[in-house]
Parts: sequence; structure tokens; C-alpha cells
Amino acid sequence: MNWIYPLDLIGTFVFAVSGVLTAIDKRFDLVGSLIIGFVTAVGGGTLRDLLIGRFPVGWLTNRHYFLVIAGGLLAAYLFRGTILKLRRSMFLFDTIGIAVFTVLGVRTTLAAGLNVEVCLIMGVVSAVFGGVLRDVLTNEVPLIFRKEIYATACLAGGIVYLGLESVTQLPSLSTVVAILTVLIIRYVSVRRGWSLRVGV
Amino acid sequence: MNWIYPLDLIGTFVFAVSGVLTAIDKRFDLVGSLIIGFVTAVGGGTLRDLLIGRFPVGWLTNRHYFLVIAGGLLAAYLFRGTILKLRRSMFLFDTIGIAVFTVLGVRTTLAAGLNVEVCLIMGVVSAVFGGVLRDVLTNEVPLIFRKEIYATACLAGGIVYLGLESVTQLPSLSTVVAILTVLIIRYVSVRRGWSLRVGV
Amino acid sequence: MNWIYPLDLIGTFVFAVSGVLTAIDKRFDLVGSLIIGFVTAVGGGTLRDLLIGRFPVGWLTNRHYFLVIAGGLLAAYLFRGTILKLRRSMFLFDTIGIAVFTVLGVRTTLAAGLNVEVCLIMGVVSAVFGGVLRDVLTNEVPLIFRKEIYATACLAGGIVYLGLESVTQLPSLSTVVAILTVLIIRYVSVRRGWSLRVGV
Repeated sequence: MNWIYPLDLIGTFVFAVSGVLTAIDKRFDLVGSLIIGFVTAVGGGTLRDLLIGRFPVGWLTNRHYFLVIAGGLLAAYLFRGTILKLRRSMFLFDTIGIAVFTVLGVRTTLAAGLNVEVCLIMGVVSAVFGGVLRDVLTNEVPLIFRKEIYATACLAGGIVYLGLESVTQLPSLSTVVAILTVLIIRYVSVRRGWSLRVGV
Repeated sequence: MNWIYPLDLIGTFVFAVSGVLTAIDKRFDLVGSLIIGFVTAVGGGTLRDLLIGRFPVGWLTNRHYFLVIAGGLLAAYLFRGTILKLRRSMFLFDTIGIAVFTVLGVRTTLAAGLNVEVCLIMGVVSAVFGGVLRDVLTNEVPLIFRKEIYATACLAGGIVYLGLESVTQLPSLSTVVAILTVLIIRYVSVRRGWSLRVGV
Repeated sequence: MNWIYPLDLIGTFVFAVSGVLTAIDKRFDLVGSLIIGFVTAVGGGTLRDLLIGRFPVGWLTNRHYFLVIAGGLLAAYLFRGTILKLRRSMFLFDTIGIAVFTVLGVRTTLAAGLNVEVCLIMGVVSAVFGGVLRDVLTNEVPLIFRKEIYATACLAGGIVYLGLESVTQLPSLSTVVAILTVLIIRYVSVRRGWSLRVGV
């Protein structure tokens, strides 16, 4: 599945940009912003790898991530105004990012021989904890836990992947359908202002 | 020591409930609340396992924790009002939780062949870092560091366990006495409003 | 290089003191302050070891760190007023601390056979994440990301170390020059109020 790798890099880039923009808002300096961009982009996958004991953590041995994140830093500084205007495109890329990270998280954990419920958790962790760590490091309440159906969309995507893959034995097909599931749930829930907040 | 396992699950349940209740207060959605409940329940033991290099992290291979935490989520949503009224019982269960987590943390670290001071630290980490991570993720100053004799009670329980076990060679007896130590210190210090805050 | 070890312990001591002082400010109790002192002192190196998969994490098997950190706790409680007056000396020791931690981080990662860019990142992580974790646990926006050329000085020191060591093959010389680089950049940037904040 060579086609998933470019999507992974796009997700990494978008997450790095979102981290750097948050850091600029907080008046962090250049290296501080780079660190936040880095953590946002690789934080979810890193936490997953630590928890399932997969060493060395993925991005340590792949230089593409460094280049993509450095590119994100540059883009965020140079084209900040433009990016803020392109929120709609950013939303699309961000959603592609979490969808791809979810499926990669599930597949990595499955390949490590762990239970399906662990796979689901690691799918969600991979997708959302980069953003959670960004918010923790910039002293914000993690947005993701309150946003319209965000982690929930990832959870649904993970369930779809596992269900479909166990029936069809076709990882590629299951990946495509799971990614589309996340995209559609995110799109519809944002459009309609859905949320799963209960009883307060 | 089969009898410690149910206590471990009770502690896990109570910590999960406390995490979910905090998340509801912060207006997190359902999956966000589940994540906070999860982190609160398994965070301390997870950090301990990462630090001592014990892979895969404990809860990844035991389905009981998932069921208990899912039960905690359900209970917190369904019986929120009742639980908030039962603060006194919650206090008891929470204290049982940290007492058990302390002893389990000490014993796990001892079994890994590490020094006594590391065992003590890991006892405290196992007991309190679930709550610390809950507070960090919900953007609060960790309550535990300011509460009446909380981490201190765990530290005392750990010292009692190590002392007694090295003298008597009886892990079960040492466990019981250490758990009682934590319970009594917590009970007395809350009753009398003790604290170890110095010089401010 | 036996002479770097005392510097490492000095850095650990100063970081522990800084953590404990922050905790006292936040009205944490004694054990809470000890935990924050501990995290501040060993947090950066711990995160580095986790990421590069070096187990058990360094401080678990060396008792000197415990003694030094306990000494830091004691010093912070006993001589709090004096320490706050000695800010200038503290600045010197803190800068020695981050300089030494940077070089140790780079060297440890290099020894683990990882890429130069990973070495640089781990140098910065070792030096600054103790302070970052201190700020996260006390619910502050990490100061380090906004301070005059702080992480940047570490990054520069790491680059100097790697460049010089690859040319001269002399680790000791490279260490000295890299440490001086961090000291000088920090000193000059604080004196002149430099920063790398852009475009806000």
C-alpha cells in the first residue's frame, strides 16, 4: 500500500503546521514552535509505539518526517495569513490526517499481535494524542475532547477497519473504507453541529 | 494473593469513575470522557511500566481492565447524581485504590530487581500519576500534590511494605499492613485537616 | 571524561531546586514538591531514554541522583530566601545544567547509533523537557519555549558538538567547546534581550 505513505506525510505536515500556528499564537520562539510542531505531528504515533513497546519509535529512523515537519514550520511562518484564510482546506487535510493516523495506528498494533480493543485504542491514540499533547504543552484544555465527534470518528473508523479486514482479508480495501468513514462522519458532524456530550 | 486482584479492579473502577466525572465537568464528549477515565485508571501503572521497561504495558494484555473501565464510564453517566452524593464511599474506595496501587507498584518494581528507593518511587507513581495525568489533561493544577497527605500516605505505605517484607519474608502480611497504613494515614489526615505544606 | 559527571550532578541539583521552588510557589506539599523536583531534574533524560528505547531509564540504577535530588529538596526548603536572592548564581548553574544535559543527550543518542538529527533533538529534549514537564505539572505555559534563546542555545551547542566531534574525533574537546557555546549564547542573549520570536 504505497499510496498510504504520501497520505501519512500529508497528515504529518498538516499536524506540524497546526502545532506551529498554536505556538506562534502563544508567542513561543522559533525553536519552541518547532518543538510544538514536532510533538503535534509525531506525538500520537510516539505514544502508541511507547505503549506497545515498539522501539525505536517510528520517526527516529525515517528522515522524511523531519523534512516534512521542517517544511511545516517554514510554511506556517511564511504563509501564516494565507493558511488562516484557508481553514476549509486545512479542515480537509486535518481530517485526512486523523483518518490515516487512525488506520495506521490500528494496523501497527494489529501487526504487533495485540487484541482488537487495544488496536482500537491505539488507533484513537495515534490520531488524537498529537493534538492533545500540543494543547497540554501550550496550557489549553485539549480541544479534541470537546470538538464535534472527533475522537469518536476515529473510533468508528477503527471499528470499520477491523470489521471489514477480518471479513474480507483485504487490508487495502478496508483502509480505504475506514478512511472514508472517518471523513464522512467528521464532515457530517461538523456540518450539522453534532456532538456526543451528555447530561450536563 | 488472589484477594488483591479484586481490590485492584475496584481501584481501577473508582479511578475510572473519577476521571469520567472530571471530564463531564469539563464538558468533554463521550469518547473524550472515556479517554480521561482510561488515563486516570491506568495512567499510574502505565508510567511505572514505561519507566522500568516492562513491555507490553500491563493493561494491554488483560481484558478485565477494559470491562471495568467501560463499567466505570457507564456508572458515571447513569448514576452521576448518586455518585456525587456518595462522596464518603467514594473517598473510601479511592483510598483503597491508591493503597492497592501503591503496594502493587512496589511489588512489581521489586520483582523487576530494582533498588528499594526506585520501588518506593514506583509505588507512589503507580498510585498518584493516574490522577496527575487526569488533572494535566483537563488543564488543572494536580490536586494530589496539594491534598492532605495524599502522596505522603502512599510513600509511608511503600516504606511499611518494604520494611515488613524484608523482615518477615511474608508478602501477604506486608501487603495487608501496608494497605491499612495508607488507609489509616489518609483517614486521620483528612479528619484532622493535616498537611505537610511548609513555609509559605 | 570523569569531569563531566560532577557537572551532570550540579545540573541535576539545580534543576531539582528549581522544581521544588516552583512547587512551593504553587503551595504543593512536601512529597508533591519532591515529585516536581524529581521530574524537573530527571524528566528530560527520562523522555530521551524512553524515545530511544534505552532501558532501564538512567536514574533508576544510579543512587547519586536520588541523593542529589533529596539534597535539592532540602536546600530549597531550608535556604529558600537565600536562593531567591542568588538568582544570578542560579542562572549560571542552570545554564551549566542545560549545557551539560545537551551534550550528554547528544552523546547518549549517538552511542545508540541514531542519526545526527535525532541526536540534536535528543540533546534539546534532555536539556529542556525537565523544565517543560515541571511547567506542565504545575499548570503553567512552558516558560522555556518563550524565554530568550533557551532551547535554541541547546540546539546550537548540539550542532557544535556533532560538527567538531566528526572533524576532530575528540569527544572531550568537543564537549568543552559545545558547553561553552551554550553558556556564551545564553549569556549574550539574556544580556541583550535577544529572542527568536517572529511575526506576531
